[in-house]
Amino acid sequence: MRIVVVGGVAGGMSAAARARRLDENAEIIVFERGEHPSFANCGLPYYVSGEITERSDLLVQTPESLREALDIDVRIQHDVIAVDPQARTVQVRNAAGVETVSYDALVLSPGASAIRPPLPGLDSPRVQTLRTVGDAVRMRESVDEGATRAVVLGAGFIGLEAAEGLRMQGLAVDVVELAPHVLPPLETEIAARISAELTAMGITVHEGIGAASVETGADEDVVVLADGTRIPADVIVLSVGVRPDTEVFVAAGIDNDRGALIVDEHGRTNLDGIWAVGDAVISTDRVTGVRRPVALAGPANRAGRLVADHIVAPETARPIPQPVGTAIVRVGSLTAALTGANRSALDAAGIDYRTIHLHADNHAGYFPGAVQMSLLLHLRSSDGLILGAQGVGPDGVDKRIDVFATAIANQMTGPELIDLDLAYAPPYGSAKDPVNLAGMIAENVLDGELKLWYAEQVDEPGYLLLDTRSQEEYDEGHLPGALLVPHVQVRERLDEIREAAAGRPIRVYCASGKRSYLAYRILRQSGLTAANLSGGMLTLRAARGDLFA
Amino acid sequence: MRIVVVGGVAGGMSAAARARRLDENAEIIVFERGEHPSFANCGLPYYVSGEITERSDLLVQTPESLREALDIDVRIQHDVIAVDPQARTVQVRNAAGVETVSYDALVLSPGASAIRPPLPGLDSPRVQTLRTVGDAVRMRESVDEGATRAVVLGAGFIGLEAAEGLRMQGLAVDVVELAPHVLPPLETEIAARISAELTAMGITVHEGIGAASVETGADEDVVVLADGTRIPADVIVLSVGVRPDTEVFVAAGIDNDRGALIVDEHGRTNLDGIWAVGDAVISTDRVTGVRRPVALAGPANRAGRLVADHIVAPETARPIPQPVGTAIVRVGSLTAALTGANRSALDAAGIDYRTIHLHADNHAGYFPGAVQMSLLLHLRSSDGLILGAQGVGPDGVDKRIDVFATAIANQMTGPELIDLDLAYAPPYGSAKDPVNLAGMIAENVLDGELKLWYAEQVDEPGYLLLDTRSQEEYDEGHLPGALLVPHVQVRERLDEIREAAAGRPIRVYCASGKRSYLAYRILRQSGLTAANLSGGMLTLRAARGDLFA
Repeated sequence: MRIVVVGGVAGGMSAAARARRLDENAEIIVFERGEHPSFANCGLPYYVSGEITERSDLLVQTPESLREALDIDVRIQHDVIAVDPQARTVQVRNAAGVETVSYDALVLSPGASAIRPPLPGLDSPRVQTLRTVGDAVRMRESVDEGATRAVVLGAGFIGLEAAEGLRMQGLAVDVVELAPHVLPPLETEIAARISAELTAMGITVHEGIGAASVETGADEDVVVLADGTRIPADVIVLSVGVRPDTEVFVAAGIDNDRGALIVDEHGRTNLDGIWAVGDAVISTDRVTGVRRPVALAGPANRAGRLVADHIVAPETARPIPQPVGTAIVRVGSLTAALTGANRSALDAAGIDYRTIHLHADNHAGYFPGAVQMSLLLHLRSSDGLILGAQGVGPDGVDKRIDVFATAIANQMTGPELIDLDLAYAPPYGSAKDPVNLAGMIAENVLDGELKLWYAEQVDEPGYLLLDTRSQEEYDEGHLPGALLVPHVQVRERLDEIREAAAGRPIRVYCASGKRSYLAYRILRQSGLTAANLSGGMLTLRAARGDLFA
Repeated sequence: MRIVVVGGVAGGMSAAARARRLDENAEIIVFERGEHPSFANCGLPYYVSGEITERSDLLVQTPESLREALDIDVRIQHDVIAVDPQARTVQVRNAAGVETVSYDALVLSPGASAIRPPLPGLDSPRVQTLRTVGDAVRMRESVDEGATRAVVLGAGFIGLEAAEGLRMQGLAVDVVELAPHVLPPLETEIAARISAELTAMGITVHEGIGAASVETGADEDVVVLADGTRIPADVIVLSVGVRPDTEVFVAAGIDNDRGALIVDEHGRTNLDGIWAVGDAVISTDRVTGVRRPVALAGPANRAGRLVADHIVAPETARPIPQPVGTAIVRVGSLTAALTGANRSALDAAGIDYRTIHLHADNHAGYFPGAVQMSLLLHLRSSDGLILGAQGVGPDGVDKRIDVFATAIANQMTGPELIDLDLAYAPPYGSAKDPVNLAGMIAENVLDGELKLWYAEQVDEPGYLLLDTRSQEEYDEGHLPGALLVPHVQVRERLDEIREAAAGRPIRVYCASGKRSYLAYRILRQSGLTAANLSGGMLTLRAARGDLFA
């Protein structure tokens, strides 16, 4: 049997390697258009930053190492330009010309290519993407040749990694994001901390605005924003998204949705003997059921492995799991991460949900190095099922997001998080881990014991705002018209609060939502109508920075 | 309603605080025998080490703060000396005398006390435990007064934390553990790395031997071991285990198992109106079903909260979950952790299981700071259910153990770990996280694609040992009689291997089990009978250090 794989890196190489381990006798050929069959895709920004010093560190495997260890025939700089599904052949172009190669099984892993919006001047040689080892090397060369100013178009995960890398190399960096905030998949109140971190790193952030054109000059380019702002640049990084790189395969008759190849649960396309994996295919989101391409290495590797299983041993191959969509990024001293669905995905899917916020230390507060992270969870209103989670903070965010991702995979409800036995010693966590605390808040919200109000509602009239922090905190900034009653005084000053409310419901808040929850419980049990600000002033300031500008 | 809680800290204070949040009108009294109603139990060793500098940092709450925030009446240095379950009263002794206090609901959270083995000389004033703030302060005073030599009896979690703390203060430290290795709940191959780390820290480790006596002198004590070894000491830390501190309550007629109070799923004892939580009660292990006390803060907090629920609102209170038993410890630059059942618990419970080992980097190998951790999983033979997991390494162990703990709580099987979408960017993990890799190995083992052999079997005759590492690695040390065939040469040297085997099954190995797996696949598909060494030489050296002494 001859298995032909189109495209190396994550999905394709996983399929090829697994096929070899399962079948010593198969002939396995990988056609890779680029120079490298397997490179550190996600490591490119760190080569730009200088954290990865050697270009060779980016090369995970070479054609030689793959032949030696796995007897895989990797042919680089081989571009598959046509497929004949009837004849079961592909046409491959390389420096020597075009050849026709037959297959018994064809695995398509062509990946995605950068979206190039129709902006005037985008063909300037100073405009680069960061998708290949060659791209990273060119970007480093620009730095070494004296570039001092960079503009990054698109503040997604890779865009921000590139921005940080260039900033670490000493360049002045502007980031331009058309969406209302950087890292659009994250909620505003999480992304705002990343935006502030970028600013603290000396990166200029332009949010909610796009580039209108690039003016190319002899010594520099100028990026012109929609509002006329002009930003000179020696390097312009284009990182506004990707689209499936599938023209050849669509032309061969493979069913697709706006270019994304449609596959069944075993990765099979509509054409017999042709499978597809990775960024080029459509997946069904595990949480929302929405069908969209997912450009993540983990799911691509997994699908590659399962496609090999299905080719070699179809009767026992497991179906490819639906991705949960977990992603993480380091920005300066912070980590931001998400798993599952976000508000916009849930709204689009018409799913009714509740959101909870908390701020908790990475480990025991009394142990040196305790720092606070901010977490949020989206829970299905009907039953508390965890739909999504996000977090940002200097330490420990990755661990909690991985636990939440595991919880989502197991269809846990929020309250079930209370009962997780997580590893506790003071350097690692708390006896009540942030994950457990999230569970407690979820339980209180779902059973009606805790009624929340949200930062978005801050402008609504008709409520008594009750600030339960200290006098000092109040003096440093509070919501307009808020009555100050520190939480330890609420019991004794109930009459005063009742009078000030004058029949209005009470909206309680503190810094994080913890002290105000104690106050809230007292108010509720005293017969008053009250709600507690989800995530407190920390979340409100992040979500509604405009109020405190 | 008056709720009386006996014992502060984790379980008791969680019950008291939750009860107040649920019921503003209850009278809540906490009797705490010691000086502090809520202190950083797990932080004590870090006060000894000097990492926590202020004694006040150990005091999480004070009677005043608890009264202010939660209107809880905390009475410290109040020792409950009797319970009259018929009259619903407790007798409490304090400096002023003995008083009788009635209750509607009584929550017992007396905790455990240090086991004091019947060793001659153990009553020396130089012998201390590390259970209270007072103990930690005394230990620091010994250091400040010039102690230079310490012996720690018992190398469990707290014993090792104390040993490290004293070592960080510059003392010469000997650790004595009766069990065959330090951290007895961990498997040998995991604990061996901790033992080596202790040695590297300059701590002398005595494993598999106990103390016979303590000889008290004017200027120093001498700890005499069972083999006659004499170790002079200025400070002796007794940390050989704990037992439930329940005499008073057993005397009152509460059903118990060797002193551990027996409770139902809501924490109720056999006596009406009396609940119990924490280290003093018996729990049913979630994995093995074995009933034993679990001395961990997380489960104690959880039970306290649920007991309060049951007292205030019995109709809606959830049952107390069975603990999985997750624990973690920092030792020098390493972290060791476990969740679920270990070999001895599984053997005792008669559960048939398979063990897998792997060594994997904390994050992408090409990103700076990549370090290797060692993991093992125990899987139920019949269906692959994850029964337990352990890990040791310089970074990232806590995250993987928390994911495994969440997996166990959800009754996941090993292969299901493949499909977890964990957060990947180069600073945090790998596209194939160690958790995913563990899942792949589990799948291969369970479906028979991978047959393992284990370090414990290394002395068995009748096999061809095949070393698939490089010539250099082989020259630095290999198993006696092993044939060297680097994994990339296995295909071309199959005839030579077949001849050397001469009909015997082949036991393949490499450093970690990865290269030898590739070789193993080739052998198997060539019709040879083979097995791959679980965890490779890294695990074998750890499990059978005697072979390489």
